Amino acid sequence: MATDGGEKGSSGHAAAEWRFARAAAAKEEGALAVAGDKMSIRAARFKISASVDARDPRPVLPLAHGDPSVFPAFRTAAEAEDAVAAALRTGKFNCYPAGVGLPDARRALAEHLSSDLPYKLSTDDIFLTAGGTQAIEVVVSVLAQPGTNILLPRPGYPNYEARAGLHNLEVRRFDLIPERGWEIDIDSLESIADKNTTAMVIINPNNPCGSVYTHEHLAKVAEVARKLGILVIADEVYGNLVFGDTPFVPMGVFGHIAPVLSIGSLSKRWIVPGWRLGWVAVCDPNKILLNTKIIASITNFLNISTDPATFIQGALPHILENTKEDFFKRIIGLLAETSEICYREIKDIKCITCPHKPEGSMFVMVKLNLYLLEGIHDDIDFCCKLAKEESVILCPGSVLGMENWIRITFAIDSSSLLDGLERIKSFCQRHKKKNLLNGH
Amino acid sequence: MATDGGEKGSSGHAAAEWRFARAAAAKEEGALAVAGDKMSIRAARFKISASVDARDPRPVLPLAHGDPSVFPAFRTAAEAEDAVAAALRTGKFNCYPAGVGLPDARRALAEHLSSDLPYKLSTDDIFLTAGGTQAIEVVVSVLAQPGTNILLPRPGYPNYEARAGLHNLEVRRFDLIPERGWEIDIDSLESIADKNTTAMVIINPNNPCGSVYTHEHLAKVAEVARKLGILVIADEVYGNLVFGDTPFVPMGVFGHIAPVLSIGSLSKRWIVPGWRLGWVAVCDPNKILLNTKIIASITNFLNISTDPATFIQGALPHILENTKEDFFKRIIGLLAETSEICYREIKDIKCITCPHKPEGSMFVMVKLNLYLLEGIHDDIDFCCKLAKEESVILCPGSVLGMENWIRITFAIDSSSLLDGLERIKSFCQRHKKKNLLNGH
Repeated sequence: MATDGGEKGSSGHAAAEWRFARAAAAKEEGALAVAGDKMSIRAARFKISASVDARDPRPVLPLAHGDPSVFPAFRTAAEAEDAVAAALRTGKFNCYPAGVGLPDARRALAEHLSSDLPYKLSTDDIFLTAGGTQAIEVVVSVLAQPGTNILLPRPGYPNYEARAGLHNLEVRRFDLIPERGWEIDIDSLESIADKNTTAMVIINPNNPCGSVYTHEHLAKVAEVARKLGILVIADEVYGNLVFGDTPFVPMGVFGHIAPVLSIGSLSKRWIVPGWRLGWVAVCDPNKILLNTKIIASITNFLNISTDPATFIQGALPHILENTKEDFFKRIIGLLAETSEICYREIKDIKCITCPHKPEGSMFVMVKLNLYLLEGIHDDIDFCCKLAKEESVILCPGSVLGMENWIRITFAIDSSSLLDGLERIKSFCQRHKKKNLLNGH
Repeated sequence: MATDGGEKGSSGHAAAEWRFARAAAAKEEGALAVAGDKMSIRAARFKISASVDARDPRPVLPLAHGDPSVFPAFRTAAEAEDAVAAALRTGKFNCYPAGVGLPDARRALAEHLSSDLPYKLSTDDIFLTAGGTQAIEVVVSVLAQPGTNILLPRPGYPNYEARAGLHNLEVRRFDLIPERGWEIDIDSLESIADKNTTAMVIINPNNPCGSVYTHEHLAKVAEVARKLGILVIADEVYGNLVFGDTPFVPMGVFGHIAPVLSIGSLSKRWIVPGWRLGWVAVCDPNKILLNTKIIASITNFLNISTDPATFIQGALPHILENTKEDFFKRIIGLLAETSEICYREIKDIKCITCPHKPEGSMFVMVKLNLYLLEGIHDDIDFCCKLAKEESVILCPGSVLGMENWIRITFAIDSSSLLDGLERIKSFCQRHKKKNLLNGH
């Protein structure tokens, strides 16, 4: 009986006797806790935001995550909003979506993505997902198998590791090299792979580093994937968001060399992360993923999973067709401007170093020079104290696999960005070591 | 090298050497395949729909799943649609949603659900999810721990078992008794539980049976859960959709006896399954789930998972406040009418038997009298041949844990329902055994 023994609560029986208590406690200490707490940007943001001093009259500046949608300058395209409203108003899209996405939406997306590829994607190559988050869940889950491992970039996007942890998929990390524009260290990649390695993840344009990989580098990555016999998971959620000299090249261009699962989303390019419309595109002209049943596993997984809202799926063909080039140009223009501001102002802050000027995505990764700071223990400590004293929220690098680095977003209106960087500067000034020999 | 050995594809190297092939094959034969194929209503529908003869000029009648949203009579409330459109048009809800749901939406839902409970839910008791599907995923995932088990009803909703399978959580089944209005067989429930049992699932109003549990029966279930020391997962996705003599009583009414996680959704009551807005409500006035860290695990899981679209969350307070009672009455009236038609017409079809008149949800569970039929092997065979010959789609009971039963939905406009039942009648007539002694 649950009422036996232990301390009695107001229900008149002991919580210690509830049989789920032990399982729950194990869960709380296990992979889920690590995943949902230590490896969640969201959890990190909440924790750091909790340090903000409520008495500070200044606005809290959210430089931790890539979501400028609340700023009027970054409002999504009118055509996209109109398309969603129109789909809703038809009343035809209140139903469950069909399987892995509405056929019209999948077809439209296949055409859209094909325009940048040397071959055509078909409707069957597209799986619609509830944002990039679900796309990661699907891809990692279908690959998770005892004894196998997956290669992830360091720094990277922690959701991959979090999902892998939940499914007992071993993670091995290869390095991105800051001095080489955050290119993948191909030697390190090869050295950690073994016969149980099934896939690697490449994020391009890169989150958190803001780098964009060249055609040449991507070709090398494809060749090494082929050599290793692994598939490439190309996280292209920031696809097309580039404003430097390097154009965006989808990994699917090399799909004939090694099979590619490309993860994409409306979230970033259309500035609508809250719409939760993402996808997995199968870029595999040789049909290796079909023949090895990876595709069947993706379908199976999605058959028992949630979906993106049907009317947003219903709007997708119109969003893709009607969004004007002007909108994309305007957003790129804004990001080009704010990334310049960010890079310029960071140069002026001695306690942080930016090894590479951002050319894409919404972020830059900077190194914390702890030896210049007094009483700051690590990146998390830096972020918490900064939040407390300056009401600026940054993302600590340790959440992204690189301790004592920091991710800053520049996807925010320029006056808020300038304000935020000014506050970081004051903070660093206030906390700098007093007796440095070389006068730093 | 991936190019070594095996048959060479057009890429010039062997698919057999791709290192993910073996893992993928194992996956295709393992829990995922079972979950996404054998235990997916969606997969079953697709398979059965594939039997439809494209030359049949009659409309295909979807009597397999509970989604009448495409029929004009079942269109959602104008106030709900207006609320979503208005939230979208503010441009304020394109952002990532905050954590486990927008605070205003959670607060409004807590108030809404509290009106039927003897205590008040707070904002913190509500977790918004991407439909009931994600709510099931969350709840099953946080309970899954090696060596533990969960008790599921037979017949039931297969998504629970599918999710449990993916997380290696052992499933044990207790029976629902058709002759007793599909009540839970409490003795069978107690007999399968052991010290490793952590939870049970109760679906009320019941899917697939169409039954509604009395206050008295639910109290008994709570008492047995308390005695066993397990938590109650109350699937109340069809909450309030009742049209018989038994009123809907939320399981949370008994939350002081045993802790309850109530799963709900806008999908059924508002006829908008495509909006993907569901929830887990913690009905646990003694805070047992908080103290045993189940709540922390739910938060952790949602921190790395996808969310319902932010603007639909933003609309939720208005949907809950403004939807007129008339809308609910009209929907209940339609279901009352179609459930009557369904029950009446089924009585006339000799090869199927309905043990209990539906009083809630959108379904009725009927027994297939195979001994009266010629050349029909089982429920799946029945459904496939019916689809082929009559273009009517039904859900085979074996997907729901009961072979040679069938789930029929009456949530469809009455003329289509009558047409469908007429076609089932013709089918049974055509396939009835010729030489039955008693002249059936």
